[in-house]
This record gives sequence, C-alpha cells and structure tokens, in this order.
Amino acid sequence: MLISNIPQDTSADLLETIDSPDDIRGLDIASLEVLAANIREKIISTVAETGGHLAPCLGVVELTLALHYVFNTPKDKLVWDVGHQCYAHKLLTGRRNSFHTLRQYQGISGFPKRSESEYDVVETGHSSTSISYSLGMATAKDINDDKGKVIAIIGDGSMTAGLAFEGLNHAGDLDKDLIVILNDNEMSISPNVGAMSSFLSRKLTSKTMRRLKDHVEERLKSLSSVGENILTVLRKSEESLKGFFTPGMLFEALKFEYIGPIPGHELEDLIETLQNVRDNSHGPVLIHVLTQKGQGYEPAETNPGDYHGVGPFDIATGKPHPSSGPISYTSVFGNTLCSLARTDKRVAAITAAMPAGTGLMPFSKEFPERFFDVGIAEQHAVTFAAGLAMEGLRPVVTVYSTFMQRALDQVIHDVCLPNLPVTFALDRGGVVGDDGPTHHGVFDLSFLRFIPNLTVMAPKDENELQHMLFTSINADTPCAIRYPRGKGEDVALDKELSSLPMGKAELLRKGTDVLLLPIGNRVYPALEAAVGLAKLGIEAAVINPRFVKPLDNVLIGTWAEKCGRVVTIEDNVKKGGFGSAVLQMLHELHLILPVRLLGYGNKFIDQAPQETLWKNAGIDAAGIIKGTLEVMKHAG
Amino acid sequence: MLISNIPQDTSADLLETIDSPDDIRGLDIASLEVLAANIREKIISTVAETGGHLAPCLGVVELTLALHYVFNTPKDKLVWDVGHQCYAHKLLTGRRNSFHTLRQYQGISGFPKRSESEYDVVETGHSSTSISYSLGMATAKDINDDKGKVIAIIGDGSMTAGLAFEGLNHAGDLDKDLIVILNDNEMSISPNVGAMSSFLSRKLTSKTMRRLKDHVEERLKSLSSVGENILTVLRKSEESLKGFFTPGMLFEALKFEYIGPIPGHELEDLIETLQNVRDNSHGPVLIHVLTQKGQGYEPAETNPGDYHGVGPFDIATGKPHPSSGPISYTSVFGNTLCSLARTDKRVAAITAAMPAGTGLMPFSKEFPERFFDVGIAEQHAVTFAAGLAMEGLRPVVTVYSTFMQRALDQVIHDVCLPNLPVTFALDRGGVVGDDGPTHHGVFDLSFLRFIPNLTVMAPKDENELQHMLFTSINADTPCAIRYPRGKGEDVALDKELSSLPMGKAELLRKGTDVLLLPIGNRVYPALEAAVGLAKLGIEAAVINPRFVKPLDNVLIGTWAEKCGRVVTIEDNVKKGGFGSAVLQMLHELHLILPVRLLGYGNKFIDQAPQETLWKNAGIDAAGIIKGTLEVMKHAG
Repeated sequence: MLISNIPQDTSADLLETIDSPDDIRGLDIASLEVLAANIREKIISTVAETGGHLAPCLGVVELTLALHYVFNTPKDKLVWDVGHQCYAHKLLTGRRNSFHTLRQYQGISGFPKRSESEYDVVETGHSSTSISYSLGMATAKDINDDKGKVIAIIGDGSMTAGLAFEGLNHAGDLDKDLIVILNDNEMSISPNVGAMSSFLSRKLTSKTMRRLKDHVEERLKSLSSVGENILTVLRKSEESLKGFFTPGMLFEALKFEYIGPIPGHELEDLIETLQNVRDNSHGPVLIHVLTQKGQGYEPAETNPGDYHGVGPFDIATGKPHPSSGPISYTSVFGNTLCSLARTDKRVAAITAAMPAGTGLMPFSKEFPERFFDVGIAEQHAVTFAAGLAMEGLRPVVTVYSTFMQRALDQVIHDVCLPNLPVTFALDRGGVVGDDGPTHHGVFDLSFLRFIPNLTVMAPKDENELQHMLFTSINADTPCAIRYPRGKGEDVALDKELSSLPMGKAELLRKGTDVLLLPIGNRVYPALEAAVGLAKLGIEAAVINPRFVKPLDNVLIGTWAEKCGRVVTIEDNVKKGGFGSAVLQMLHELHLILPVRLLGYGNKFIDQAPQETLWKNAGIDAAGIIKGTLEVMKHAG
Repeated sequence: MLISNIPQDTSADLLETIDSPDDIRGLDIASLEVLAANIREKIISTVAETGGHLAPCLGVVELTLALHYVFNTPKDKLVWDVGHQCYAHKLLTGRRNSFHTLRQYQGISGFPKRSESEYDVVETGHSSTSISYSLGMATAKDINDDKGKVIAIIGDGSMTAGLAFEGLNHAGDLDKDLIVILNDNEMSISPNVGAMSSFLSRKLTSKTMRRLKDHVEERLKSLSSVGENILTVLRKSEESLKGFFTPGMLFEALKFEYIGPIPGHELEDLIETLQNVRDNSHGPVLIHVLTQKGQGYEPAETNPGDYHGVGPFDIATGKPHPSSGPISYTSVFGNTLCSLARTDKRVAAITAAMPAGTGLMPFSKEFPERFFDVGIAEQHAVTFAAGLAMEGLRPVVTVYSTFMQRALDQVIHDVCLPNLPVTFALDRGGVVGDDGPTHHGVFDLSFLRFIPNLTVMAPKDENELQHMLFTSINADTPCAIRYPRGKGEDVALDKELSSLPMGKAELLRKGTDVLLLPIGNRVYPALEAAVGLAKLGIEAAVINPRFVKPLDNVLIGTWAEKCGRVVTIEDNVKKGGFGSAVLQMLHELHLILPVRLLGYGNKFIDQAPQETLWKNAGIDAAGIIKGTLEVMKHAG
C-alpha cells in the first residue's frame, strides 16, 4: 500500500461531515489528523481518475487544515499562489460533493475560481502573484478599517520570480498587516535554481559566515585583554551563529518578521504558530513552513517532479494509464532541438522552471553547458537569451504560450528592437484543455504579430515544426514558433531538415469558390472541411500560411482573388490575431472580399477537452464547413 | 557660477583630443580630472540646448572615465542599464562632434544604440535589463572561450525591478565572470521606495541588528566565565558590526562578491578598484559605487529629481525656458484624479517610480494614504492594484504606455480574468518624440484590444480625458484610457464630469463620400482634413469612436454604409490596432467596403518631434487628406 502516514482509525470518514471550515474549528488534533488522512485519500483517488496537480496538493493538506482552523475564513482571506495546491481547500469549503468533476468540462476548476466559492479569493494559475494581491488587499483593508486578515501562501519556487520580489520589497516598505506563508518544499515544479534557493534550503554557509568570522576575529584580536577568550567562545557559538544567519536573514532585511522554519505536516505546531501570529503579530510576517511535495503517497514523495501534474494513473502502482498514439509536439520539439544542437554548437536552450513540460529534459542531459533553467523568471529568460545571442549563440527560449505573456516587453524591447536571433518556442499555443482559462495560449498570435523584426510561424504538423525550428535557428532575426499542446498529426518525420522560404505559404488544395486559410493546428481540420464542402458542391482552396508574419501576400492574394471569399481559422482569439492579419493584408492589396474569421470571441475560455473547445468555437471541421456555408451566402 | 568642481586648469579642452577610449588610457589622474570637467561642461551646454537626461549623466562622468580607462572597450562590454546615463560614454566613443544633435531628428540617440557605435552594446531605454543581458553575454563568452569582460552598470532604482532580481538570482547560480556596478545615488528618478533601498542607503539598522545583538548576548550570558567581558567588547564593536551588516549582505547572500561602497567621483579610487577587480576577481562581483545625481551642476545637485530629464534650460539660472500654450494631458489627468478623489474615497493612485512624469505629484501630496509609488515594478503595480480593487477601492494604475508592456500578463491574468475594476491610465500613448524607439507607446492599442473584459478608450482632447477617467472609475470592470504625450487641444474643461455611455461613439461631422475614423489625438487632425477634403469636393463624415473596445458598431456601421469608404487613423501601429478592429467589425457586419488604415508600419520608429513622426506616417491632416484621396479611387 503506497498511501502512508494514515492514523489507525480512518474508518471514520470525517470529511463527509465537513461542509465548511466552521465544521473543523471544533475538532481536536486527533480528529484533524484523521481528516487530513481522509483528504489525502480523496485527493489521490480523485486525481487518479481526473488527473491534476497531485504532489503540490498532498504537500499542503495539514497546512490547509491549520489555516482554515485558525483563521476566520472566508472573512479572513487565503490567497493561494499559483493555485495548483488548492484541492484540500476546495474539499473543506463546500466542494466535496463536486470534487469528482475536478478539471472536467463544466466541473470544478483545478485552480481557485471566484465564481465557485466565496472562499476563493482570486482566480490564479500563474505564479508569484499572491504577495502583490495580498498586499493590495491588506492595504485596502487598512484604509477601510477592516480588521480581517490576509494570508498569502506561496511556494519557494514562486519566490524566485521578480514579481514576488517586487511584492516583498513593497510590503516591507508599506508595513501593513500581511501574513506570508512560505511553503518550502525545496522545489517548485522542478528542483529550484538560483542563488535565492540557498536561503531557503538552509545551505547558506561559506562566504557570508567566513566573512563574519574573519571580521569579528580581526576586531577582537586588536583588543588584547579579552580577545583570546572571546575568540574561543565565538568559535564555540559558530553553529549557533550559522543558525542565526539562515534562512530568515533575507526576509528580515526586507523588513518582514521571520518565523520558522516549522514542520509543515505537524498540525499542532502549525496551529500554535498560526494562532500566535494571528494574535500577536503586526506588520508583514513571513512564516517559513517546511513541507514535502507528495506527502502521504509514496510514488509522489519519491518523485515529486513526476507527480507535480499527472494524468489519470493507477493508485496501486502509481503508474500512468498507458498512452498511445502519435508523439507529442513537445517531444518532437525537444528531439529536434537535440539533433540540431549536435551539429550546431550555437544552439542553446532556456526554460523558466519547466524543463520537463517543454520537452527539454533530453537536451538538458545531452548539453548541460548549453541548457539554462532560470527559475520562474520569464522576463529574465528572454533578456538572458538576448545576451547569449549578442555573443553569437542561437538561444531558444522554450515557454508555454500563456507564460510568454509575462515577458512581452522583453520580447519587444530587449530582443526585437536590437533584432537579435532569438527563437521563441511557444508550446501550448491555443487552448490547453483541463487547466482552463489561466493556461490557454489563445492570445499569442495577437500579441506577437505587431512586433517589428519578429517572424511568427505556426506549423501544421510535427514535421513542419522540425523544419520551422531549423529555419528559425538559421535565421539572423528573432522568430517565434507557436505549436499546440498534445499529440502530433502522426505524420512521418523527415530526417533531413531544411529552411523554409521566409514568408512563403503553401497551397494544399486548389479550389474556385472559397479560400480556407487555417493556421497551425487548424490546417488538417480545414482540409477535412474542404472534403466535406466538396460533397456539398463547394470547391474550397486551402492554403497553409505557415507564417503569420510576414504573410505571403502573393499566394494568399492570388487565391483570395480567384475564389472571391475567404475563411480564416485559428486556435486563437479573433481580435488582432491571424484572421485580422489576413483582413489587413487583403485591404492593402485592395481585395475587398467577404472574409469570415473563425476563432475565439471576446471572453475567457473555460476548461474542457481541446476537442470540445474547438467544436464550441466552430473551428473543428464541422464548424469550418458551417462557417464557410455562411460566407457563401454573401457575394464573392 | 553654478558649475562647480572644476579643476583650475580647464583652459585645456582635453575632450577635443579624445576620439576613442584609447586616447584616455595614457592620461594621468590630473588630466582625467580635467577631462571630467570638460565632459561635464559639454553635457551641460548641450543639454541646455537639446534637453535630455542631465542629472543621471552628470552623476557618472568619473565612473564612465574609469570604466573606459580600465577596461578594454569595445572588446570588453559596458552594458548601461536604462541607458539614460550614457552621454559621457558617447562623448568618449567617437560621438563628440555629433553630440550637438543629441535627441534631434536624425541625430544621435539619447540612449545607447547599436547602429551608432560598436561601443554601444545594446539598445536600451527600459530599466533593469543590464544584469540579464550581461549574464547572457558572460555565459556565451564562457562557452566561446572568449576572455572579454562584461560589465553591467545599474542604478539603485533599477535594482528594485523584479527583472534585476531574477538576473541577480540566476547570476549567483551560474557563477560566471560578471561585473555589476551598482551606481547608487539613493534615487532612481524619484527617491527610491521599498525595503530594498534600506540595503543600499546604508540605513539597515534596527531589526536585524537588534536580533543579532539579542542573540549573541543571550548566548554569551549563558557562559558565565567570560560572558561579561565579551559583552562589553561587543557593545564597543557595535558600530563595526553595523558596518559589516550593510550593505553587502544581500548581494553576498545571492553569491556575489561584494566590494564597496566606494566614492563615485574619486577617479583614483574608482580606477584602483576596477583594476583590482579586473585582475583578481572571478565569478559574479558587485561593486557598490556612491554617486551624486547632477554632480557638478548646482541646480541638478540640489534637485536631482527635477533635473532627471529636462527640456532646454538657461545654464546661468538653471531655469527651463518658459513654456506656453495649453495644459498637458498629464496635468489634466493629475488634476482630475485629485478632484475625483475628493468626493470618492475609493480612488487610489499607483505609479511605478514616475510620480512626476505621470502627473501624480498633486495626488501624492493631497492623498498620501491612497497614493502608492511601488518602485520600478510595473508587474507588482498592476497586481497590487488588483488587490486594492478586490477590497472595494478604485485604483488607477498610471503608467507610460511603453512601460505597460512590462505587465501584460498581470493585466490579462490578474485583473481582467477576475474582472476587477482597475483603471489603467496610459500616458504617452503614441509617439513620444525625442526619447525614440524605446519609449514610443505605439503598441498599446494592439496589446490591449484583445483582452476580454477590458474596455479601451482614447480621448480626443483633455476635456474628454476627464470624462473618461470619471467613466472608468465608476465602471465595475477594468478600463484602460490611452492619451498622448504633450499639450492638450486647448479646449474648455467642463466642471461637471459625467459617465460616457459605454461603447458609444460620437458623430462629429456628417458626410456622404467617406467616413473618417480617427482615434484619440487624431480626431482634430481628421476634422481639419475633412475641411480640406470639402474644398476638394469630398464630403467626409467624421466619427470619434471614443472606445476602441467595445467599438460602436451601430453608429460606425451606419455611417460606413452611408459613405461606402472608410479611413481609420491612429497614433499606433496598424497591425492589430484600432483600424484592424474596425476592419474586423465591418466584416462581422457584412459591410465589405474599401477601408484604408493609417498608422505606423512594421518597424521601430526613430526619435523625432511628434509632428515630424505624424507627418512621416501620414497621420497628420495633410496625410489624412492624401490617404483619403487614395481610397476615393476605389469603388465605394
């Protein structure tokens, strides 16, 4: 049995009696421990079915219980950073009976969501926002003379982001009543990087200690009378001094009261500390809590990285359900990058704390000296890559589309203005499915296509992705390649890679009645739609534009004119995206034709399987046929 | 005479003999001091004519000399953060004779610019990029086995940005040879805020010191034999310990070797320290240099904030040349916000280190408890505002358009997804003039208009700006208002403010032949163009859309259909901007008409007076007439 750490009497399913945090506030420690075990079982059994963020949620079961036990939620506000650790919170706040719908279409979200519960303070999904949010709330409460508490719960990984530092820095200055819980599991999604982690992992030792000792010894030696005695004592107290220096120093320097580290799975300690802070602390306080990711489920404890986010799995073995079908875009990207790096010494890869998710694990092993995990720091990732490019390397910044939003200015100002050959590999462009609105990559075509000097590509399949990556690395200018989450199209992968002609589209099907212009992963559905349309007597031409910028105005212009009507299809918002680019181009060519744009409208998109979202937006084959039939009603 | 600190023999204009840094490397200290004085005089006399960043440049004259003296530039790389302190660098690197063209049309840039000189390593303008850039370069040099040095020069203000922290954190981890010069003048543009500044301003005293003392005393008291003696000594050495704790602690904790603080206007000290680091240091080193902003020019020394960036001024008095004409948009914004805050207690204002530039000084004085300067931290500014909004306030994030690029994800994910009533007041939307490509705000309409839940407005004049601010603060959803740099249109300011109907445009002129759709500051030029067109027999209707999002599809659709042709005009890039929105809307309405988009094309825009840039882009009245005549050739 892999589920450990469960008290003997777990027959009582206490969780079934908990409808709100009020119901836990009268329980004794023993009962809370039973409840913790119940919650763990519920999380494990549910995530085994639905998939989800297993290890982070198992790591904060006791912390979540202690927080709701001590604080007067929902009046007191718990602000979960990222939000991927919120399952125990959801189970305790009235969502026990809907928990089986976790991350499902029209089910409950895997992240905090305001529309679900008054206990969910903010929508989250992106990291490192909690301190800033909480500081704003604490400040407003001060202005409003509201005595409610605000508690930010942030992981050590999230602490590496600049935003978190900006929040800490301002918090120290404002001196409002703010409680920050540092949930320190010594890793975020992957093991942490960066000097900052020294503070947190209690490894700060040599340089600072040495300097202090040297300094003090020097001073003392100059005082002949008592100097020697003191030195002896100081040497004895070295261990104690070391304890003093780590890990609270940084936070105290930033004017936080530092408390900890305290063990994060001991309910009694947690509750006592939180009560103490609640009743006695003023100004910004940081409580350093040591937790173990995956706590209570052996496979997750052993490999917390692998169990950070999981698909459905077998509880008894911990193994994921067998997967079949084509290789993912992510894997093709990672493999291609390795093969390019073997012959091109300029190729380097950068990730912001997502080496596995972005397919860079093989690269990191084969080319450790050209692989850089910068922590959760997308801004730095981009500007650091710019520096590499200035000295002749060909860096590839590999990032989920949604997180690229974090570094727009760095793309514009630090890379594209000086026109540096950096490649942006945007994984998970388009809708991502279960993770929902915070994670869909549906804005990137809109926020990339206006940037001067930047080339923007989207491959129709995993084979084209390979060639685009080759093209990009061999271009002398910045390029972005945007590809979707999930499986490829199961096409053959060319062994020899070649540069695609810049800004040239490819005609995939000739037609006379309408031109279909699908971008990226919408190409195959458009081809399928063309077949369907042909059965209805409509001959659709299909062009794969390949490049969103520069657009091929010759090929597209020619066929638009021939067909007299155009339908654009994109896994992106319509506003400012690919279809918008086509419209602008056609007007510049004085081709005034009916053009119908298919894509997402002006609202955030809920969680659902990708296929459902494509269908709902009318960008699957059936939707493309329907959209095309509508444009056929208008004069061509 | 307000220019101080000049050695006696300045009759020798040494600067005239300096064509490259090679020419200074043989000089003795006395000559370098004369050269420093020559450089100061040149900077002051030039900036008095051209305007520019006076105080920052005067603060680093000796530092710049020392850096070029000690390091083998251009092989060794100087990476100036922000870049607004680069005038001495430009004077020493072959741009002495073109220096009088500073910030002028087709003249030299006020920032580093790669196309100007091989000594300019990167284009900059935005802050806090230097550490990331330099770390990338140092890392690539290590891979390439290139022994050249990389030196980042960063101000204490820039150090408050998250990006700088991300860079420091990664640098400590990578352990490459990297020299960071912290140019500490205890203020960035305004006096610094944030706990971080305690480190730098050597004010770190109470909490940490007290805790250390308590801790050590407690330990010592338990050692009866020598404890008392030691306590006496420790008390004596308190001052010394205090010196130890500040200000290097943070940087050493981040694994930098810390050197300093050293006086920044003493050439001998600077040179010796830099030589020592050049020859003996390995891994990341931070040299803490204390400088005075405005050094050598009394008015700038006394009021460095006022002399950070200046227009032309009188050297003898230090006073700016008298300005005339209408009140600026910035001032109207600032005044309106104050008047709104007087009756609406929910109104709060946030700036990222630009209280003066954004017009918030009056607000900061009148409502200090609702005014927040968060440091150079646009990301935090936005998320902090979101927190304020969640607790019922109506925060206004006031930021230059170009710096809003720094916080796109926070606007999308932290504000618009939870649909919080935050106002984004985007000053300097459109081209800004002399500051050039890094500072033009020509992308904002494109990167804002695709965000769900966000309303985007642009006022035609300063009176409409007032009403838009009122409208926004009273909306329950996020709103952005985008207005230009410079003077208003000299219209009367209504005393009573009212909410504009959301998403409703206003018809300013009826017409039959073409519909002109100008946004924001292009409305009056379009009206002027309409008069000109009438003389040519073309009757142009003119609509002020007011809202970029949502667009008024009824009014615009009606008049577009009546007129049969449309011209859109925007002080923004054409890709994805306002005209693009109009095109999409017309196609959704099945109005398939010739539409001509006027705005900026697909390249970065150089420095020039705004009028010149508007003219060059064809978006002044004459350009609008020309663009309209072209669209008239096509069937309506």
